[in-house]
Amino acid sequence: MSGFFSSRWVEPPSRLLDSAVMPAGFRLAGIAGGVKHADSPELDLGLVLSDVAGTVSAARFCDSGVLAAPVVVTRERCDLHALRAVVANSGNANAATGEAGIAEAARVQEAAAAALGLHPREVAVASTGVIGVALPGERIAAQIPRLTDALTPQGGEDFAIAIRTTDVVEKHVSLELTLPSGRVRLAAQCKGAGMISPRFATMLCFVQTDAALSAHTADQLLGVSVKRSFDRISVDGQLSTNDTVILMASGASGVRVEPDSEDELCFGEALDALLRQLALRIVADGEGARRIARVHVRGGGEETVSRVARAVANSPLVKAALFGGDPNWGRVAQAIGAALPGSAPLQFDIAIEGVAVARAGTALEFDSDALAHAVSRDEVLYEIGLPGEGAETELFFSDLSYDYVKINAEYTT
Amino acid sequence: MSGFFSSRWVEPPSRLLDSAVMPAGFRLAGIAGGVKHADSPELDLGLVLSDVAGTVSAARFCDSGVLAAPVVVTRERCDLHALRAVVANSGNANAATGEAGIAEAARVQEAAAAALGLHPREVAVASTGVIGVALPGERIAAQIPRLTDALTPQGGEDFAIAIRTTDVVEKHVSLELTLPSGRVRLAAQCKGAGMISPRFATMLCFVQTDAALSAHTADQLLGVSVKRSFDRISVDGQLSTNDTVILMASGASGVRVEPDSEDELCFGEALDALLRQLALRIVADGEGARRIARVHVRGGGEETVSRVARAVANSPLVKAALFGGDPNWGRVAQAIGAALPGSAPLQFDIAIEGVAVARAGTALEFDSDALAHAVSRDEVLYEIGLPGEGAETELFFSDLSYDYVKINAEYTT
Repeated sequence: MSGFFSSRWVEPPSRLLDSAVMPAGFRLAGIAGGVKHADSPELDLGLVLSDVAGTVSAARFCDSGVLAAPVVVTRERCDLHALRAVVANSGNANAATGEAGIAEAARVQEAAAAALGLHPREVAVASTGVIGVALPGERIAAQIPRLTDALTPQGGEDFAIAIRTTDVVEKHVSLELTLPSGRVRLAAQCKGAGMISPRFATMLCFVQTDAALSAHTADQLLGVSVKRSFDRISVDGQLSTNDTVILMASGASGVRVEPDSEDELCFGEALDALLRQLALRIVADGEGARRIARVHVRGGGEETVSRVARAVANSPLVKAALFGGDPNWGRVAQAIGAALPGSAPLQFDIAIEGVAVARAGTALEFDSDALAHAVSRDEVLYEIGLPGEGAETELFFSDLSYDYVKINAEYTT
Repeated sequence: MSGFFSSRWVEPPSRLLDSAVMPAGFRLAGIAGGVKHADSPELDLGLVLSDVAGTVSAARFCDSGVLAAPVVVTRERCDLHALRAVVANSGNANAATGEAGIAEAARVQEAAAAALGLHPREVAVASTGVIGVALPGERIAAQIPRLTDALTPQGGEDFAIAIRTTDVVEKHVSLELTLPSGRVRLAAQCKGAGMISPRFATMLCFVQTDAALSAHTADQLLGVSVKRSFDRISVDGQLSTNDTVILMASGASGVRVEPDSEDELCFGEALDALLRQLALRIVADGEGARRIARVHVRGGGEETVSRVARAVANSPLVKAALFGGDPNWGRVAQAIGAALPGSAPLQFDIAIEGVAVARAGTALEFDSDALAHAVSRDEVLYEIGLPGEGAETELFFSDLSYDYVKINAEYTT
């Protein structure tokens, strides 16, 4: 667990204890639910349950024009501040499936609610997998009794396996923190390896804590942390149809995190570090990725820095050069220019791993051996300066590899 | 030449004669100019000259915030309606080179003007190659006498070779047309294989005709044809720093193309077909490309159809599936949704090679064998319908292959 915070771009929480027990009040499960094929032995159906009445929750979703049915059902039919359970599946995104897809998602939601003695409004649903294929809701609903029987406080790993698709890197963890008011635990299970800017399909992240949070605090802390983590990554610039992040706080630790308290600061810092490291794991697990990078843009307005950061992070030329360990900074310059048409002559600065390669729009003399060495490591930092002061943003991204093409050329066939 | 119009998406000009002689009044050359290395044997320096005083021209350029020095020099220091010559080089883009780059480009321009007895305002310059490396203007200027000595009416092929970088597919042609008022010829030399949405760097296209055009007619016809050709292609969604298209009309045929005449209609149609086929060749030559595709979007507003077409054409997931011959239409749905955030539930339709796969946002039953066969051919058509009527656009794009990654991971090293 102490090895979890592996990136130099994440500050580990200061009050972290080296322990790995799940937050009190939660049970999880992952089973072979036959989502893709009725007799598949793979874990593909998962459940998170809080046993505590009064559990508080918060959620965030993607904003695609083609929203998957489970996103629509969870967003429109749930009480997002009082979720008690989440049913999640891999193997089928239940997206572009129309009204029938909505009905299938609701069928799963209702079956789970009935089995757990909850109201459907307390049960969220989430899916990931191929788009445009009917979800076998009846088959899944028939597995719900087996799924609830499998629930255990130690079920986090099975759950995490059940929601994976092309993921290779593990993305689940459990942390223990000493807040000023006492010890709380925080756990998360996450999936995502492509179609990230937030693959077919998708990034899902489920976070549990036994801290007691108000609905407002939960929403605010999740919102800020998502903006600094999952909103700041790109594997391939492809917004998914299914992205879902759900935080559940059981309060079972008895430690209350009050607004504007030192506890809130510490808890928020830990949540932020957790989601940021998970987001970086998604990037590092970017389909076929060899290297990850951070682009940091400073200067000009909010819109300008954001467009430049996205253009660099999503450029297949920058990404292929990153994969090749090719110190071709001209591609960064090209992406900057493409992001800001009509702004020539643009007075941009570029530094790569601290080596300044361009200033005021013009190539500099630099130590090319040092640069070549710098871009051969696992993490590469691109710093871009634009005219003006004020705005600042960052984005984390993966390279573009042979394996990305291979994985995505052969996805459904 | 009659094999030039090879795509089903280009209507060959109706008045085409099967001949391949260069337009009267022009001489071209391509030599080993030592652009990249002083003693390289490769052709990398080219020249187009019209021997006719009163030659009319028109030009179009990319709109990047990081414009290459030759684009700046040509745009700001030339009379774009009265160009007599173009000096073009491969091996160096002369981009992100600041004031020194401008001075080097002007040095080449001035040396050519002096050697040809022209004013520098009559001489355009164009470059393609790596970004951020100083152009050896003095070395190039010293080659100008050799370059002018090499000029010949048959020099089109050498010129075309001199402007290539990673191009594999030939992109030069000469056509003869029977206009109502007489025969004219039209020739073009073009390069481009990556960083096309208009690689490092670039698409360049030079067109010559011996028809007599007014400056206004030349500008108007070029503008319309560029919008329907080079503006409608994407290899990798990467706007270049150097794109340049120049049309020169010597008038040496004695055939005058008057505004609003039948001649203008025929000539315009031929220019349009020529640039469209060249644009498709650029796409087919997209680095490592196996297949090309056309996405046609109809419905909604201009902004909406344009965003959807770009999102589909630039999606690495759609492109990898195209490469793999994978009938994964869910990726098209994902790209549509990502282009129009907040529009859910979006009532989109998708057909691939005439096979309807989704209607009103919902998957249809379809013949999957027919679809799998359809996406295994050289050209694949995606048709997308959006709610509302009115707007319509198209975009041509290449797939995303192992070789694209390979070429771009190892470009400068």
